Amino acid sequence: MDAAEFRRRGREMVDFVADYLENIEQRPVYPDLEPGYLRSLIPTEAPLEPENYEDIIKDVERVIMPGVTHWHSPYFFAYFPAASSYPAMLADMLCGAIGCIGFSWAASPACTELETVMLDWLGKMLQLPEHFIAGTHGHGGGVIQGTASEATLMSLLAARCKAIRRVHASIPENSEADILSKLVAYTSEQAHSSVERAALIGGVMMRKVPTDNSYAVRGDMLKKIVEEDKAAGLIPFYFCATLGTTPSCAFDHITELGPLCNEENMWMHIDAAYAGSAFICPEFRPLLNGVEFADSFNFNPHKWLLVNFDCSSIAKNNPFKHNLTVTVLLLCPSSVLQHWQIPLGRRFRSLKMWFVFRLYGLKGLQAHIRKQVDLAKEFESLVRADKRFEICAEVIMGLVCFRLKGSNELNQNLLKRITESREIHLVPCQLSGRFVLRFAICARSTESRHIQQAWRHITQLTFELLQEPNH
Amino acid sequence: MDAAEFRRRGREMVDFVADYLENIEQRPVYPDLEPGYLRSLIPTEAPLEPENYEDIIKDVERVIMPGVTHWHSPYFFAYFPAASSYPAMLADMLCGAIGCIGFSWAASPACTELETVMLDWLGKMLQLPEHFIAGTHGHGGGVIQGTASEATLMSLLAARCKAIRRVHASIPENSEADILSKLVAYTSEQAHSSVERAALIGGVMMRKVPTDNSYAVRGDMLKKIVEEDKAAGLIPFYFCATLGTTPSCAFDHITELGPLCNEENMWMHIDAAYAGSAFICPEFRPLLNGVEFADSFNFNPHKWLLVNFDCSSIAKNNPFKHNLTVTVLLLCPSSVLQHWQIPLGRRFRSLKMWFVFRLYGLKGLQAHIRKQVDLAKEFESLVRADKRFEICAEVIMGLVCFRLKGSNELNQNLLKRITESREIHLVPCQLSGRFVLRFAICARSTESRHIQQAWRHITQLTFELLQEPNH
Repeated sequence: MDAAEFRRRGREMVDFVADYLENIEQRPVYPDLEPGYLRSLIPTEAPLEPENYEDIIKDVERVIMPGVTHWHSPYFFAYFPAASSYPAMLADMLCGAIGCIGFSWAASPACTELETVMLDWLGKMLQLPEHFIAGTHGHGGGVIQGTASEATLMSLLAARCKAIRRVHASIPENSEADILSKLVAYTSEQAHSSVERAALIGGVMMRKVPTDNSYAVRGDMLKKIVEEDKAAGLIPFYFCATLGTTPSCAFDHITELGPLCNEENMWMHIDAAYAGSAFICPEFRPLLNGVEFADSFNFNPHKWLLVNFDCSSIAKNNPFKHNLTVTVLLLCPSSVLQHWQIPLGRRFRSLKMWFVFRLYGLKGLQAHIRKQVDLAKEFESLVRADKRFEICAEVIMGLVCFRLKGSNELNQNLLKRITESREIHLVPCQLSGRFVLRFAICARSTESRHIQQAWRHITQLTFELLQEPNH
Repeated sequence: MDAAEFRRRGREMVDFVADYLENIEQRPVYPDLEPGYLRSLIPTEAPLEPENYEDIIKDVERVIMPGVTHWHSPYFFAYFPAASSYPAMLADMLCGAIGCIGFSWAASPACTELETVMLDWLGKMLQLPEHFIAGTHGHGGGVIQGTASEATLMSLLAARCKAIRRVHASIPENSEADILSKLVAYTSEQAHSSVERAALIGGVMMRKVPTDNSYAVRGDMLKKIVEEDKAAGLIPFYFCATLGTTPSCAFDHITELGPLCNEENMWMHIDAAYAGSAFICPEFRPLLNGVEFADSFNFNPHKWLLVNFDCSSIAKNNPFKHNLTVTVLLLCPSSVLQHWQIPLGRRFRSLKMWFVFRLYGLKGLQAHIRKQVDLAKEFESLVRADKRFEICAEVIMGLVCFRLKGSNELNQNLLKRITESREIHLVPCQLSGRFVLRFAICARSTESRHIQQAWRHITQLTFELLQEPNH
């Protein structure tokens, strides 16, 4: 394919993309097929000779689309949102064309530099403390990671390195292996599985901290478990706080937890993967109070800030940079950015932020967050007005946790009917041992009419379910 | 921006991309600016109100392009290639539109399933042994990783887990921490820094194995160091072989190393990041002989197989899958693929492979590899015909290592002039303590005339350099 054909096929693809997104509402949001469906639809080997472009595009509808869970359907209410916007898609096209691998400054200076400034823009939007901002002389600053999982892992590795050095400096006869075997990290019992996974990869123990009846960790809960572990000879070194947990969007009390971590020489990382984007609105910013005690902070603009996946941002204050740089500098002296991430290569992902921030403006981004929170409140009101249902966690952002009053089995049956209907898509969670339905406002295109329609659909299925003899 | 405006701006962007790539030859390949150039060119904060699209596009030329190292210029000969092709860019547009986060099968079945089949296509193109292929009932198979660094880390973590279990099973009184402190991994002294970095992250020792005069590791060299370490009470558990090293594209002797690793219960991972793509040509496939002894194998289609970054593939045989699944299953029981990578979220990257493999066909991909190897041979002939120069390593694929006969300083001066001229771009390496220039065939658009022009340019700069009084 030469440039001339790309011009033609590119225009067609732009239309294909626009058509797909404009008409996505007509597609069943969740696929109706069995695992393994695709293999029999395509050859078992790559073709020897080139094929026609038309055949490939036909196969997109024949092979791919039937197996897609349509995350950008206005009837998709599962997981958390995956951001998508036209400006981000345009920037990604440019990113593909430039096609640089930004593993060092020299490998493409604009790639490193725009990223640094975009992370500063983000930090300022969130009103992060000055020491998280790179500026011209700062020691803080951020980088784009692929996912929050990677950001958590990087923070844990940095904390591990810092702790080993600190303990080794004070008790030199302790070997690194001895110290490593005594290190213990903490996170909420409500935290995402990727936090526990980071500890597994880093080869350190991790203990789960119980939460209060809002599913949030409080200072005294962490304090108690840290005291026990210290008494048992362990070395507490890391706490991963969550702002906006995956099951119920709960917020750990970082104003209590932060000072405790600082006092105990424990690294505090904040994982605000979903909720972090909302802190650009002044009315939500108080939930981030306490960030000044943190060593690192991460959230995903690719979830809720209209920047297409993958784009997770991590900001660190001085100690982070200092420590991780020192650790890995021996291996890769050419750059700093690469010490803040697992992969060495990196796409020019900051272009997406640049396009999105400029084409929406801060006000446009705030409007997007507020609209989705309002839609969640609208759904919450519908649920609360129906006495058969209950709300299971405070609705603070775009997530509503709800269930039918009654058994877990009843709610499992309801979700099964919802999933099989393929009109809307939800996933469940467990809260205090109860099976709960999560209704997350996800697509940029979701409007009030979709919320109303979703609720009509849920109540219709509920009606049918409750009419069955065994209920 | 609504769909209608996206249709318009998308067409413009397609033309921008085509224009950029058609005229890239006219741009200086390497930027002329100082670190920090970008910050003063743009505001320090995001705008409050939306900006005009035209202003942003103007800024692409004003702010971004001056800071881009043009990896797809036919005069870019640095590092290794970053793949780029029009079919891959079209597939990436589709990937952005679907915008699913494929962290589990249900999150978008097509995303998981196409990836599994595309990795089988790749495995068959490379004639990998049957146990690396998923098929319908297989236990092997591959996944797309972002980078080779991540693939190496994943293989090391899987090997670490397997070794700890094995030793613990045979000597139960050994604690996990004890075992971890005795584990030792190996790689070539010529291996990429990401291999050492994986050991650092995994918290295990890593020793460098010396190479022969072709910069390759041989069986007896590894055997010697393993015997020493075992005698010292350590537990050898992992060897990362390189096929196509970064400095000189050397090939470790895996037919000798593989049986040794199997005998010693050591995991053998093969990192063929660059050279792996060439194994689709029968004439290069013998270099992969010995892969049947490996536990995991990785290469980067985003380097040399026309699939835009990021797309690194890793294939494993049974033990890998078995072990890693068992390890992480406790945390994330919903899927298998996610246990093979660090991030949980994943883009629909296999679309790029599908488009590229079908639109080029195996023959087209082979032609691309062969053309670039031929261009390297052409450059090698030019160097060999000039008695002032020497070739520093056998030219097997698309990389030529060469230098002026004489001091390191002389060669450093030559490279400095090349870099400052900005007409072509090279990076150096160290081989046997000598400063060597690496000339890698990178861009898809590089032709014989660019090689000839590059050599004229190098010899002109050499002429000027050698005329200076101090030489």
